[in-house]
Amino acid sequence: MKLELLAVEGLPEIGAGADLGGLIAQHAPTLETGDVIVVAQKIVSKAENRLKDLSVLEISSDAQHLASRLDADPRLVQAVLNESVRVVRDDRVLIVETNHGFVCANAGVDRSNIPGADMVSLLPVDCDASADALQRRITEVSGVKVGVVISDTFGRPWRNGLTNVALGVAGCVALVDYRGRPDDFGRPLNATMVAVADEIAGAAELLMGKTRRIPVIVVRGLVLDCADASGTGKELVRPASLDLFR
Amino acid sequence: MKLELLAVEGLPEIGAGADLGGLIAQHAPTLETGDVIVVAQKIVSKAENRLKDLSVLEISSDAQHLASRLDADPRLVQAVLNESVRVVRDDRVLIVETNHGFVCANAGVDRSNIPGADMVSLLPVDCDASADALQRRITEVSGVKVGVVISDTFGRPWRNGLTNVALGVAGCVALVDYRGRPDDFGRPLNATMVAVADEIAGAAELLMGKTRRIPVIVVRGLVLDCADASGTGKELVRPASLDLFR
Repeated sequence: MKLELLAVEGLPEIGAGADLGGLIAQHAPTLETGDVIVVAQKIVSKAENRLKDLSVLEISSDAQHLASRLDADPRLVQAVLNESVRVVRDDRVLIVETNHGFVCANAGVDRSNIPGADMVSLLPVDCDASADALQRRITEVSGVKVGVVISDTFGRPWRNGLTNVALGVAGCVALVDYRGRPDDFGRPLNATMVAVADEIAGAAELLMGKTRRIPVIVVRGLVLDCADASGTGKELVRPASLDLFR
Repeated sequence: MKLELLAVEGLPEIGAGADLGGLIAQHAPTLETGDVIVVAQKIVSKAENRLKDLSVLEISSDAQHLASRLDADPRLVQAVLNESVRVVRDDRVLIVETNHGFVCANAGVDRSNIPGADMVSLLPVDCDASADALQRRITEVSGVKVGVVISDTFGRPWRNGLTNVALGVAGCVALVDYRGRPDDFGRPLNATMVAVADEIAGAAELLMGKTRRIPVIVVRGLVLDCADASGTGKELVRPASLDLFR
């Protein structure tokens, strides 16, 4: 058994309105049925023109106040608040719950790898819809049915370092449910649900890196213990009511 | 660029005192310098005889009390408390900080895939030392210098599903530090530290599954943006004093 991850090299800089699915289909190695294409959120946001010019933002007193406490750019804080439904922590870094329900630093608002000094990228409005559109377009152009995972780099409590996780999923499992399945000795398994889409996103990060300009990875050979291939990024978001740490 | 994950198939059931490193070297596909071998904690614990017979435990009143609140086996709760320095949450599930500093459910004490109705497995006493010993033994038997990651399946706040993370690391990077490195447009990168050892562990889980009896995976082709290959699992543990969610 073998799993392969292949870098999609040579993609051009992605601008607003780019046919990202078409470009991926063109530049990917020959695709095979069942391949899952991991796409960095940043280029999805660029193609969808989810960029914001910080210099046009009106700064609220909340943002002003938070920014001075955090020693941050008040315009960036305003952009983060605009993308958030709640501030989870504002001690050293601004951790928020985004409009999607993701809990992450700065609502995924990010200055890196964006042209223009005052420009930031925002997360796609609906990451599953973005994954879905990419999946349909890549499948259309390549003629091969693939899955798509849109990934971004998030921190987490308790452990140092960030990892890539899945924000949007289409044509691919997100969670594998082992509840009720027997272990090697016939007793029920302890690990109930495994977030395979997050593991796929993290695996792809190992090839993407942060400085190699490789925002798309093909994952080949996934054999997931799951009949249902129709996962979503939403499934991976724990509802606030069930979360002990929000 | 390409990353490959290869299953190590045909390993026998691992018992106490087994030469696990030797068995891995024997059953792995021909190893190459730079390969990283991901080993499931469960078989490391079995080889190190980190098993506990619940029926011999003396149950404290604390464990009794917690068990009735959680509707859990008081003996299992006692085993968890014995491996813990602090209870982080005891609402629906027992989340503790282990003697190592890991924050996880049930201190990693686990009944699944262990022979004997009253037996549980405990995490290795020192996961980096276990990784180190395996690394030296596999390198000795195979003649090829490899890295080792010992992985287990942990939950996390905010997101549904569990993922595999790295408990012990030897001869491999754990964290890649991007601080100060420029992005494509010359500005400093936002994502400062990436927990690549956790991403390696998660990637390997995709092949391991939970019901395939494949507890060892070879990861080939890692190109990490990091000069220093001597990471540890300890680096991945956020100190309690810096953790906003403990």
